[in-house]
Amino acid sequence: MKQIQGGVCAAKGFTANGVHCGIRKNKTKRDLALVYSEKIATAASVYTKNLVKGAPLTVTKNNIADGKAQAIICNSGNANTCNANGIEIAEQTCELLAKELGIAANNVVVASTGVIGQPLDITPIASGIPALVKGLGEHSDFACEGIMTTDTRKKEIAFEFTVGGKTCRIGGIAKGSGMIHPNMATMLVFVTTDCAISAQMLQKALSKDVEDSFNMVSVDGDTSTNDMVTVLANGAAGNAEIMTENEEYAAFCEALSSVTTYLCRMIAGDGEGATKLLECKVCGAKDTATAKIVAKSVICSSLFKAAMFGADANWGRVLCAIGYSGADVDVQKVGVCFRSGKGSIVVCENGAGVPFSEEKAKEILLESEIEVLIALGDGDGKATAWGCDLTYDYVKINGDYRT
Amino acid sequence: MKQIQGGVCAAKGFTANGVHCGIRKNKTKRDLALVYSEKIATAASVYTKNLVKGAPLTVTKNNIADGKAQAIICNSGNANTCNANGIEIAEQTCELLAKELGIAANNVVVASTGVIGQPLDITPIASGIPALVKGLGEHSDFACEGIMTTDTRKKEIAFEFTVGGKTCRIGGIAKGSGMIHPNMATMLVFVTTDCAISAQMLQKALSKDVEDSFNMVSVDGDTSTNDMVTVLANGAAGNAEIMTENEEYAAFCEALSSVTTYLCRMIAGDGEGATKLLECKVCGAKDTATAKIVAKSVICSSLFKAAMFGADANWGRVLCAIGYSGADVDVQKVGVCFRSGKGSIVVCENGAGVPFSEEKAKEILLESEIEVLIALGDGDGKATAWGCDLTYDYVKINGDYRT
Repeated sequence: MKQIQGGVCAAKGFTANGVHCGIRKNKTKRDLALVYSEKIATAASVYTKNLVKGAPLTVTKNNIADGKAQAIICNSGNANTCNANGIEIAEQTCELLAKELGIAANNVVVASTGVIGQPLDITPIASGIPALVKGLGEHSDFACEGIMTTDTRKKEIAFEFTVGGKTCRIGGIAKGSGMIHPNMATMLVFVTTDCAISAQMLQKALSKDVEDSFNMVSVDGDTSTNDMVTVLANGAAGNAEIMTENEEYAAFCEALSSVTTYLCRMIAGDGEGATKLLECKVCGAKDTATAKIVAKSVICSSLFKAAMFGADANWGRVLCAIGYSGADVDVQKVGVCFRSGKGSIVVCENGAGVPFSEEKAKEILLESEIEVLIALGDGDGKATAWGCDLTYDYVKINGDYRT
Repeated sequence: MKQIQGGVCAAKGFTANGVHCGIRKNKTKRDLALVYSEKIATAASVYTKNLVKGAPLTVTKNNIADGKAQAIICNSGNANTCNANGIEIAEQTCELLAKELGIAANNVVVASTGVIGQPLDITPIASGIPALVKGLGEHSDFACEGIMTTDTRKKEIAFEFTVGGKTCRIGGIAKGSGMIHPNMATMLVFVTTDCAISAQMLQKALSKDVEDSFNMVSVDGDTSTNDMVTVLANGAAGNAEIMTENEEYAAFCEALSSVTTYLCRMIAGDGEGATKLLECKVCGAKDTATAKIVAKSVICSSLFKAAMFGADANWGRVLCAIGYSGADVDVQKVGVCFRSGKGSIVVCENGAGVPFSEEKAKEILLESEIEVLIALGDGDGKATAWGCDLTYDYVKINGDYRT
């Protein structure tokens, strides 16, 4: 597998664009994004589990029920959620885009991110669509910018891989900076590939992948009303369509995982106000489920996150988060180690502290990417979770966002 | 019921004290507290559910297995948790105190709060006990100070009530500023009463009470290794001992609830770095369990807490937290109202926003005690949860506590 340029336009037959249409007041910020496939692609999607769901998710779910899609349109600045006419607006968006592209309206994936509960006006979208379509090209970065809210960095990646002797490409863009903020936020991920794969296998691959990728990311523990991950596969690479769980399927899953894992790390590291990416790797759990519970509990602990902001090797907070996680763990066996580019340091063994150099620990924890390694000594279960530190800026960003 | 002075010394036959013994470096801060009953009292206790448990909790559990206790000793500055010799040190503490008081060592309740994983030296405790005992008197406030860590306010209350024609008193002290920090923190509550009640009924009353009181408080979602609530009842009021769930039992439970509810509000309002007490009242749930899940989910949302810090009427974050709470709720029926001393304002009805004055909302939310009223329109279930806003100072306090 090889990392390549191009984001969602790396795969053959995909183009993209992003424009400022006027949903946001800042005229220099693109707020409407488009990803387009020359031919109809197979489509798979996963959605937020929040009971409060954005209207675009409902419309998308209907549109791709047949496993097919040809375009993705997404606005930022307004989540189109908890609005009386949300469904109507989302459907109108699909129709307007479909007309401009000359495709079927039910082949459009629609998404929104931004403020909840404020009616979304169709006018700027309607007026922006012609330029959006006209400018279609190798503009993954424009699309990427169009879906950003509080994100400080573009999140874009692509890889080349081989399936059945054919070179395939897969690439993605993402936004997400708090796991969610019903105001300006939500996690959105759009992935494109030219690998040929049936809609059923694509959905299977995606559903399995998110369990180990996006479901293991937490910025603030809140789950958005508009979270959504969508993959389009248009088969332009010319490989024989993947129809079963064979070797080719495994190769595709590996490529998909490379894209999603990269984007997970980007999302966590760009958490609102974050100064550090935290990666919690648990091993020795009695099973995978236990490892996941432990990894997520640690990565979600406000106390642990604040300690990491302060580069404080406060392993007691790790133990504590393991203890209240609800996982079946023998706390007398737990070992904890911090690691970064500056080295690693063991701080806890058999559930109790071990002498360590506070200076060395500080040096390790001052880095911008920190690994927390937890050994449970109880089996072969492993899991990784991603998060970020809790900082003054998180409070600032979220303390007064709407006004 | 009448509020009275005296804290844990309000009930007949109880004295208290607090001294500086040297566990903490700051010599002006009391770090060892004592509550003493002239005669052996019935005792009940609830403990943290964290798998990582402080050594003092284990020792206390053994000591009050017979439902009896006569003294409570508690140090701050060191949690005596995750230490190889923790049990030994906690037992020594009981023995030293028992000898000085002339009581049985297994009638001592022992508790600790402070840093995890640093051995607790018995020397300062041993040298502090004589003065601690000698100074016993109406010093509930000294004891209260002795258990404080990052608390900025003493948490102390007492009430007078009547049981079977006899006047009884009940009072309590508490500490807790983060729901926990395995470093300097933990929630500890000690309640004394002169009401006569059997050990079994006392435990029943306490276990039931904490479900609606301390288990509904969240500062940061973290559960301490050392959390503990203990009640001593010495019967000095002279009422006929409460042995069944009769009218007298109900009167006692009401009095206990007055003490615990007051302390809950004090703990939440004094959350680390907090500027506001948040009280989330849910009604119209299909049952109590559902109401509790919803109330806690809202009070625990970092995004909602940050919005309250900014006095931002961001009701979308309330809806979102309800949506991901896991509770069975019809989001189309949800109503939300903010209320404080400055009035109340409805911001959401039937799951969608309603027009409201942002100015009025700001005025309401700038107060230091905010109620979030949520109506689910689905039954008679009700619950209240307490929390606080998320502020810069929370991050500051927890970003570098140990060093």
